[in-house]
Amino acid sequence: MPSLADATRGRLLYGGDYNPEQWPEDVWPEDVRLMREAGVTTVTVGVFSWAKLEPAPGVHDFGWLRRVLDLLHGGGIEVCLATPTASPPPWLGELHPGTLPVTADGTTLSWGSRNQWCPSSADYRRHALALTEALAAEFGTHPAVRMWHVNNEYGPVCHCDETADRFRAWLQKRYGGLDAVNAAWGTAFWSQQHATWSTVAPPRAAPYLPNPAQQLDFRRFSSDVLLECFTAERDVLRRHTPHLPVTTNFMTLHPHLDCWAFAAEEDVVSLDSYPDPADPRAMVWASLGQDMTRGQARGPWLQMEMAASAVNWRGVNRAKPVDRLRLEALQAVARGADGLCFFQWRASRSGAEKFHSALLPHAGADTPQHRAVRTLGRELPLIAEVVGTDVEADVAVVLDWESWWALEQRGRPSDRVDLGPLVLAWHSALWDAHLTADYVHPEADLTRYRMVAVPNLYLATDAAIDNLTAYAAGGGTLVSGFFTGVADDTDTIRPGGMDERLRELLGVQPLEWRPLTGPAPLDGGGTADLWSEDLRLADGTEVLAAFADGTPAATCRGRARYLATLPEPALLRRLLADAAEAAGARPALAGLPAGVEAVRRGGLLFVLNHTADTVRIALPGPHRDLLAATGPAVTGPTVTDPEAAAPGAAAPGAPAPDSADPCTAALHLAPYGAAVLRPL
Amino acid sequence: MPSLADATRGRLLYGGDYNPEQWPEDVWPEDVRLMREAGVTTVTVGVFSWAKLEPAPGVHDFGWLRRVLDLLHGGGIEVCLATPTASPPPWLGELHPGTLPVTADGTTLSWGSRNQWCPSSADYRRHALALTEALAAEFGTHPAVRMWHVNNEYGPVCHCDETADRFRAWLQKRYGGLDAVNAAWGTAFWSQQHATWSTVAPPRAAPYLPNPAQQLDFRRFSSDVLLECFTAERDVLRRHTPHLPVTTNFMTLHPHLDCWAFAAEEDVVSLDSYPDPADPRAMVWASLGQDMTRGQARGPWLQMEMAASAVNWRGVNRAKPVDRLRLEALQAVARGADGLCFFQWRASRSGAEKFHSALLPHAGADTPQHRAVRTLGRELPLIAEVVGTDVEADVAVVLDWESWWALEQRGRPSDRVDLGPLVLAWHSALWDAHLTADYVHPEADLTRYRMVAVPNLYLATDAAIDNLTAYAAGGGTLVSGFFTGVADDTDTIRPGGMDERLRELLGVQPLEWRPLTGPAPLDGGGTADLWSEDLRLADGTEVLAAFADGTPAATCRGRARYLATLPEPALLRRLLADAAEAAGARPALAGLPAGVEAVRRGGLLFVLNHTADTVRIALPGPHRDLLAATGPAVTGPTVTDPEAAAPGAAAPGAPAPDSADPCTAALHLAPYGAAVLRPL
Amino acid sequence: MPSLADATRGRLLYGGDYNPEQWPEDVWPEDVRLMREAGVTTVTVGVFSWAKLEPAPGVHDFGWLRRVLDLLHGGGIEVCLATPTASPPPWLGELHPGTLPVTADGTTLSWGSRNQWCPSSADYRRHALALTEALAAEFGTHPAVRMWHVNNEYGPVCHCDETADRFRAWLQKRYGGLDAVNAAWGTAFWSQQHATWSTVAPPRAAPYLPNPAQQLDFRRFSSDVLLECFTAERDVLRRHTPHLPVTTNFMTLHPHLDCWAFAAEEDVVSLDSYPDPADPRAMVWASLGQDMTRGQARGPWLQMEMAASAVNWRGVNRAKPVDRLRLEALQAVARGADGLCFFQWRASRSGAEKFHSALLPHAGADTPQHRAVRTLGRELPLIAEVVGTDVEADVAVVLDWESWWALEQRGRPSDRVDLGPLVLAWHSALWDAHLTADYVHPEADLTRYRMVAVPNLYLATDAAIDNLTAYAAGGGTLVSGFFTGVADDTDTIRPGGMDERLRELLGVQPLEWRPLTGPAPLDGGGTADLWSEDLRLADGTEVLAAFADGTPAATCRGRARYLATLPEPALLRRLLADAAEAAGARPALAGLPAGVEAVRRGGLLFVLNHTADTVRIALPGPHRDLLAATGPAVTGPTVTDPEAAAPGAAAPGAPAPDSADPCTAALHLAPYGAAVLRPL
Repeated sequence: MPSLADATRGRLLYGGDYNPEQWPEDVWPEDVRLMREAGVTTVTVGVFSWAKLEPAPGVHDFGWLRRVLDLLHGGGIEVCLATPTASPPPWLGELHPGTLPVTADGTTLSWGSRNQWCPSSADYRRHALALTEALAAEFGTHPAVRMWHVNNEYGPVCHCDETADRFRAWLQKRYGGLDAVNAAWGTAFWSQQHATWSTVAPPRAAPYLPNPAQQLDFRRFSSDVLLECFTAERDVLRRHTPHLPVTTNFMTLHPHLDCWAFAAEEDVVSLDSYPDPADPRAMVWASLGQDMTRGQARGPWLQMEMAASAVNWRGVNRAKPVDRLRLEALQAVARGADGLCFFQWRASRSGAEKFHSALLPHAGADTPQHRAVRTLGRELPLIAEVVGTDVEADVAVVLDWESWWALEQRGRPSDRVDLGPLVLAWHSALWDAHLTADYVHPEADLTRYRMVAVPNLYLATDAAIDNLTAYAAGGGTLVSGFFTGVADDTDTIRPGGMDERLRELLGVQPLEWRPLTGPAPLDGGGTADLWSEDLRLADGTEVLAAFADGTPAATCRGRARYLATLPEPALLRRLLADAAEAAGARPALAGLPAGVEAVRRGGLLFVLNHTADTVRIALPGPHRDLLAATGPAVTGPTVTDPEAAAPGAAAPGAPAPDSADPCTAALHLAPYGAAVLRPL
Repeated sequence: MPSLADATRGRLLYGGDYNPEQWPEDVWPEDVRLMREAGVTTVTVGVFSWAKLEPAPGVHDFGWLRRVLDLLHGGGIEVCLATPTASPPPWLGELHPGTLPVTADGTTLSWGSRNQWCPSSADYRRHALALTEALAAEFGTHPAVRMWHVNNEYGPVCHCDETADRFRAWLQKRYGGLDAVNAAWGTAFWSQQHATWSTVAPPRAAPYLPNPAQQLDFRRFSSDVLLECFTAERDVLRRHTPHLPVTTNFMTLHPHLDCWAFAAEEDVVSLDSYPDPADPRAMVWASLGQDMTRGQARGPWLQMEMAASAVNWRGVNRAKPVDRLRLEALQAVARGADGLCFFQWRASRSGAEKFHSALLPHAGADTPQHRAVRTLGRELPLIAEVVGTDVEADVAVVLDWESWWALEQRGRPSDRVDLGPLVLAWHSALWDAHLTADYVHPEADLTRYRMVAVPNLYLATDAAIDNLTAYAAGGGTLVSGFFTGVADDTDTIRPGGMDERLRELLGVQPLEWRPLTGPAPLDGGGTADLWSEDLRLADGTEVLAAFADGTPAATCRGRARYLATLPEPALLRRLLADAAEAAGARPALAGLPAGVEAVRRGGLLFVLNHTADTVRIALPGPHRDLLAATGPAVTGPTVTDPEAAAPGAAAPGAPAPDSADPCTAALHLAPYGAAVLRPL
Repeated sequence: MPSLADATRGRLLYGGDYNPEQWPEDVWPEDVRLMREAGVTTVTVGVFSWAKLEPAPGVHDFGWLRRVLDLLHGGGIEVCLATPTASPPPWLGELHPGTLPVTADGTTLSWGSRNQWCPSSADYRRHALALTEALAAEFGTHPAVRMWHVNNEYGPVCHCDETADRFRAWLQKRYGGLDAVNAAWGTAFWSQQHATWSTVAPPRAAPYLPNPAQQLDFRRFSSDVLLECFTAERDVLRRHTPHLPVTTNFMTLHPHLDCWAFAAEEDVVSLDSYPDPADPRAMVWASLGQDMTRGQARGPWLQMEMAASAVNWRGVNRAKPVDRLRLEALQAVARGADGLCFFQWRASRSGAEKFHSALLPHAGADTPQHRAVRTLGRELPLIAEVVGTDVEADVAVVLDWESWWALEQRGRPSDRVDLGPLVLAWHSALWDAHLTADYVHPEADLTRYRMVAVPNLYLATDAAIDNLTAYAAGGGTLVSGFFTGVADDTDTIRPGGMDERLRELLGVQPLEWRPLTGPAPLDGGGTADLWSEDLRLADGTEVLAAFADGTPAATCRGRARYLATLPEPALLRRLLADAAEAAGARPALAGLPAGVEAVRRGGLLFVLNHTADTVRIALPGPHRDLLAATGPAVTGPTVTDPEAAAPGAAAPGAPAPDSADPCTAALHLAPYGAAVLRPL
């Protein structure tokens, strides 16, 4: 199978989405020239070009794309060629109204935006695959083309009758028969039994709380049916170009896709990541997406989209300072990215995303933004030795989409408990403790990790529970969050309210869930939020933290720990850091100041200063800063010096002098500065 | 006619919903055993069993239900048998799509939840009555069956064409002709005249404010059409089992039903009540529902549903402390309940309510929750003498659904004025003043009450106004809230903006309504909110309270008082307590501390401590605490002693000693403790 | 062409909507009598009378209207006769379902409210014009009728298929062909190209961000199609009654209509204005509507609707103090109104607006409200010399609906930036600086103004840019707000992100837009909000204000100023006042206290005290207060006296003595008092 390495070939890819169809053809040569000057290696072409490539049903206009590819190839720019199936042209919806998605309340969504397709529609699939086939046949051998990008941010969900047909077939396959569906869905409750298959359908607008197991299965199905669309296109492409890797792009905490299942079918796993510049903890959120994607890729991955500055789809779209752009780019590489692509190359003058920033902004090349883009293009080759290497992590975090979908339904103990924020809180605590974590599926092999954290696994399969308990039995340190192991794979509550194996392992039984409406005080100070439990402790279970009323908040039994609440950040960090230390898991660098991130990848040490202060970091011996070598051309804030920097230099906010000697054990980083260090 | 007494037969009923179809048959014997151990007398069976009882159109499967009833009967458990018509099976909606409800914007609501039926649908009615008939024929003579529970929490509202037909017939009957409808609806405004009956329809999605009188009539119709469904089932049941009482369950401030009209058709009035454990004033809200239900029942009633702990349908579902469960149960009995049933017996493992608490929780019988359930099962027989008796109340509160519906429409002076919170504010003030109130229809006989409070009666019929003025003329004390007597029964403003008879009685005329956007200061301190008026006072009208700018806020003319605003709680309590005292209405017990509730029923005195402190209460002579006799087995917090308790015992939070002598005039109650006292 | 002068004939019109069809015929004579007593000159009749005038298709019942007009004429009351086409009767929707509007998600809006018509519907138009024709034929010669009021607050928007047809025709006319539409809409983005006209439609529910240029064109079309409806009725009326002026009523910042285009087709421009009594700055909002309407009218205009006190459609509808009513009325006259009409004459007893205040309230004529109405009716004739005259203003504010529509779309830099609040902020700053402004179209002749302010002109046509730059080149002072000149008339971003001519004029180029999430500190104190920019300054551009981080916030290049943010009110006022002073623009009166408004119109000086304090105002010489002459009958708060008032009189809150000598240079105004002064 082809892989990301076939595309990188030792380079860190650099580029972004290129949408030449939005521009007069005479702009294209300027684009290629500016790309070369910026160090761009790779652009993604054609993501939204269906209407341009097939202006009428079955009528192909491929000439313009060939001219673009030729031009790019002539300029040394490689291409990740997209199948444009994420946004069908208006004619498809008119010709086949059944290709348009239908909401749960029966509203048909029309064209005029994007994503207006029903993944169950046979008509959609036929047209999408035919165009994919034609593109592969036409351009699969074009020398510019180095990778395939299938569709875009898969996500459409449909509730139409054709979807219902496909959902029934999916259920038939999963359960074997209607009785099993009724049993799995618990339709004995509220008189929901299906007497015939004909009444089984997607969950549609209903008077009150919907059946949760039906909802869960529909989310599973909706992910699977999108995956079918992906694999169908991938198979066409593989047939034509077995040598070219295929990817589709995820998003951080992408709610519609089981990314584990998708990643298993991809040659390259790629991520679109848009941390919010208005969020002072955006780098933590970004690192979560990076670590998750690395977990799904089981190695290096590709940043398929990021923003040079602002996006256009938030309420208020803050601009991104140029130093933050560089920091974000290096962070992605540190955490496993083998390439950095942006949406998009040149800012659109029209359309719904004309206010999305670009590598080449509206104000042109002579701008601070574009100069930062060029600087980054010169820096990435300096650290290219990292390509293809692994990130060092001896902590794993368990994450599962099925459990997520089951957790976040109506009618649960507390709608304040959502998986995303919960995982982010745990991730944030690990980040603050300077611990790098891999994200893993609950049934994945855990033996290589010193500690496994489970922020929440409400729905846990028997296999997952066996996996976690076997890991613990083998000497691993398990830290489990509350409301874990509650339901089986049909969202049926396990006897006793929590799986018996987990109860035994953790030494606890929640007799009652007691969600909190706000922070509650802890014994000894601090607070915890979201949750508490009437917890029965087994003999030998130790209380690590308790609420002010004495209720246990965190417990320990041997190497297994249980958090019956969400402690405030400082306490959660301490609890996880203590567990990690006991387990022998270590930060990449000891003694790091708050807000400084250190990650080891492929023998290199990435040190990133996310603070507005100049920081001094002690290193365990002399290192060379690979980025310092670029000299004055790189006006980045990285500073190292032989001894402590001059007092003035270390003062917060003072301008940082360039390094006098890049080989030393004392690293100074200017505000938002970064260093990529190789031990000497 | 049969009545609740036929079911209680001297006992306080105890039990809850039992849904055996959710469990394998081998669980049933354990259920019955545990019920017996918990003191359960009665369970409600079959509320959501339609699909199980009639798995396909006209095909009955009654065997399992007979086995359940036999088993329960063998265990001495009585049954309130439900007609399962609240939740039709999916096949009904498929077979007759017209049975599915349609929203005002035309969305059809589907199965997969519950309540998916149109009350106007002839198909629905035919199927529902046929099954009711079959159940009555099959089980009406079963010895376990002691009561009928029809449908569940009636509520569906539909806007379909069949509803429109029935609505037109209802209007024809009410008004006699189309001209009268046009007149009643004021269709001269905004060119809304109906030239033919064919354009008369339920209020559907429209560009701007809808016709308020049409809305009002549609709410009347929607309640009436549900009542038709109820009486149709009831009549079937009565034909088969004239000896068995029939009920359907209300909810506190049930917005869709005119409970006065429903109660008049029921043999037993029953209530589902779910005070929110997160609300520190939940006991006040609970007592409102209890007093309203007693008013509708004109005597004892049945608590059909309550929760042992958390529910599942709030945003955050707090757990209920076990002492609060006992207090809530005794409060219901104090205020007229002759039985306490819970939703549900055994916690569901599947479905939308699997996180709703139960008498038997997920964690099983060996839990604090279930132990509290058993304790309550032992205590209720000790106070069974209260069954069938009346609650003492010499205050009445006027409440009317038609006025409520008319009040809460778009386009009114202030959407901050909602009836529920307003009535709760008045009820809360009476509760704080330790005054027990009956809730009455505005046209009910008021002569037995010393004081009648009218929080709001925006829409007042001529009969209601005559009733209130006659009551006042007969020497009664009337306290009226603002915006009362404004509209007639077609929601037409009465000449002068307020009925002339009320103006004369109260000695006020609001020249202008002046709603408030927030609290406004009062002369002499304190605030009032929601409302103010430019009030013209008649000669002899006295100002009891005024705003800081001099506008009258509360007035008095003879025995009639008027509140032109909503005073802050302490002031509202004082105003109502003053009026009550002047009228000779007295609390059940004098000198009660705040947060302690005392209610007299059937010669017994219920004293309930809703505070976290131990309280001492002086009694007018020696009493026996019926619950104290249970001895150490009852680990409740009730304490009495001969003299004042030892100083230490009375200290807040100190553990309360058990009573040394239950016959004394000094009662001590531990935090959240209760006593049921019989004078000696 | 007829004009407003044909209706006023030297009088200030006074009256309101009169809906006699809501009342029994025997109420009408009383109405006329009370109107005469109140000084009413003019009433608007028939706005919502379609169903009454045409109770069945083609069947006319005009007799009642003739009786009303005869009665009014007999009482000396003139009539503005309405075409009742804003609210079709239910039979129209039943007969022609295609006349009902359809929302973007496909919901059909029904009758039972008002406005349920599709402006593209040929059936609607045919019926509306037929009735208009019949009314004009029947009543055009009635002596009471002096003006036509067409429809009401035009606003319906429809997304139906007939609308789609008309939209395509509109696009064909605007663009000439489908290729041009595709180009204008930038459909190359997201594969939105239309291969055939058949897929071009109104923007309907879609999965994600809609095409912004399509949205813009649909808003243009929706305004144009309403204008077609207006001109079609107007043409019918003109044919019958060429001597009678025709109007339709706008609302302040009416979002659905391009009021410039509408005003150009009207004989009289009229405004419905409902400042919120709960808003302490309501008088500023009111003056904005008045100044805009005057701009659209290019001279005197008519206040078609205002409220005597509360309205009924806000969440909380505060009452309006009677002194505020008088102040608001005089403010409208000061700013160009030649007549004051209220909604409505007599408060409705039924229907959706029965809680809307009226000239004759529910509580009748013997009320403070109605007495204030009569007082105003006596005062207006005293200042009638103002009729037909111009308001003095040497500042202009540029406002454009197309730019507004383009600005407020999804996917823009910040959804905190809305045009209404932004214009209001600038208007408020001018008001606080006591500067009177005309509102003008961006392509209007600006030469008569000393200063032109452009709060925002995101979309600027080439003609508009040329107009503004020519104005500046001619010596005018231009003050431009941020995000101006960004897009062309197809909402395409201009090269460089801002039009080059404007960049040159203002001496700035925004390299990046940096919207703010909240107030940001300025250098030297104070804050600014909403926006900031990475601003490149041309040589010679001076920084007037900067953010604390040094980013320019306001700049000046010659007479051209640029605000890259929204400064806090005090600073915005200072910046605009400085610019005005430099430009030679002066307040109507120097040295005015805060909250006192002075406007010069037709040789008179209106001085309005919007504060709760008595204020003393120095006048540049002796004036006569035209309202003081009404003597004790006018119990208004206007006070003038020869010297300073007695110390006691000037004290805040003290009762203001009546003027001893109305001819003096020192004016005292009691709280909320007003004077209309003629220089002596």
